[in-house]
Amino acid sequence: MKKALGILGGMGPLATVDLFEKIVTMTDAGCDNDHIRIYIDCNSSIPDRTAAILNGGADPLPQMTDSLRKLEACGADVIIMPCNTAHHFLPRLQALTSIPFLSMPEITAAACARRFPGKTAAILATQGTLAAEIYDKALAAAGVPFLTPTEEERQALMRVIYQGVKADAAPETYRSDLIQVMKQLRSRGADYFILGCTELPLAVSLLRLEAPVIDPTRELARAAITYCGYQVKA
Amino acid sequence: MKKALGILGGMGPLATVDLFEKIVTMTDAGCDNDHIRIYIDCNSSIPDRTAAILNGGADPLPQMTDSLRKLEACGADVIIMPCNTAHHFLPRLQALTSIPFLSMPEITAAACARRFPGKTAAILATQGTLAAEIYDKALAAAGVPFLTPTEEERQALMRVIYQGVKADAAPETYRSDLIQVMKQLRSRGADYFILGCTELPLAVSLLRLEAPVIDPTRELARAAITYCGYQVKA
Repeated sequence: MKKALGILGGMGPLATVDLFEKIVTMTDAGCDNDHIRIYIDCNSSIPDRTAAILNGGADPLPQMTDSLRKLEACGADVIIMPCNTAHHFLPRLQALTSIPFLSMPEITAAACARRFPGKTAAILATQGTLAAEIYDKALAAAGVPFLTPTEEERQALMRVIYQGVKADAAPETYRSDLIQVMKQLRSRGADYFILGCTELPLAVSLLRLEAPVIDPTRELARAAITYCGYQVKA
Repeated sequence: MKKALGILGGMGPLATVDLFEKIVTMTDAGCDNDHIRIYIDCNSSIPDRTAAILNGGADPLPQMTDSLRKLEACGADVIIMPCNTAHHFLPRLQALTSIPFLSMPEITAAACARRFPGKTAAILATQGTLAAEIYDKALAAAGVPFLTPTEEERQALMRVIYQGVKADAAPETYRSDLIQVMKQLRSRGADYFILGCTELPLAVSLLRLEAPVIDPTRELARAAITYCGYQVKA
């Protein structure tokens, strides 16, 4: 039985494009009609998740709930969202709906255990995701060893994400920040990197960085395709 | 007053990604909250538009109407669709809704008149778009001189679109077909090309072809951003 997919998007808009594109290009399809039915609400009114977690910024839950209701009304059978930090609010969203809501960090942790067994991950993410220990909890539950960035490294990652990708700045303006953070984590024992903010796969791709990474957006796309009853392209 | 945008998508899915990406990257925005609220129904159940126009294939209107109703229910203030051939059904869709529905061929014809005044366009499109004279009518109304492909050239374009882009085949497999058609139209007097099927901007980009073109997806993105009350990035 084929299922329809709902994407609670807008966090950020470009990350929503990235997830949508990965789902479409990774689905094994020979024509338009072989694809998944996908509903997207790219909701630009959702307040910043990191600001809400760290600084008492506006609560994103009301706007996320508005999107959830719209995806339900469209007929989505399963929901995903392309924002790692937003997963801090996932238990509250799950409590509001009877529709299954896949967890990007849990899916990613399972992929880490499968693809890099025994190796040490470094979590690259926003201050909000790191403070809320979203990946820490998922990785610990899956038995994956991991490192987190220092305070200084977290600030550099925030610059890459906010002044860089979200502001659509030239990739060269954030190259040295990102490379420096990755180098330092390598020197502390990281074997590979979890691109734990949906803007980071975009940064790594735009900068053409070659490093062993897990892209949670790709893992989420793969899981969603399978969940909806479709095949992932070989 | 900012407006929310609805995208009646899935025709095809990759063209829907392309339109969505163009809207997001062309919007002048410094953070997530500066973007347009966008609802997308990527409806893979819409029967092939060319088959319906040419061969008595299944009527796409019921599924298109289903998507239209969902976008209305979400709260879209204006609707667009990333499929030129589907615009054959536009008057019938417009009659079903009170929400404005922008016409990609009309927007494109206006862009042709503005950007290539007095020059001759060649329409590259599906058999359905060409048989229904979707661009012929829009260009004539805007006073834009144009050429259309021969029957043999139309068949080559169908191969590029269906066995090529829609089937996600390697770009090299459809390079010679597309280049040959463009060469022949040039030799008959075409000054520039209207990429009048939403799969063709993808083909031209993947093949890195350098030719004077009008990309209707880009023109539609630009018009939608402006209509919704946002600025197009300089």
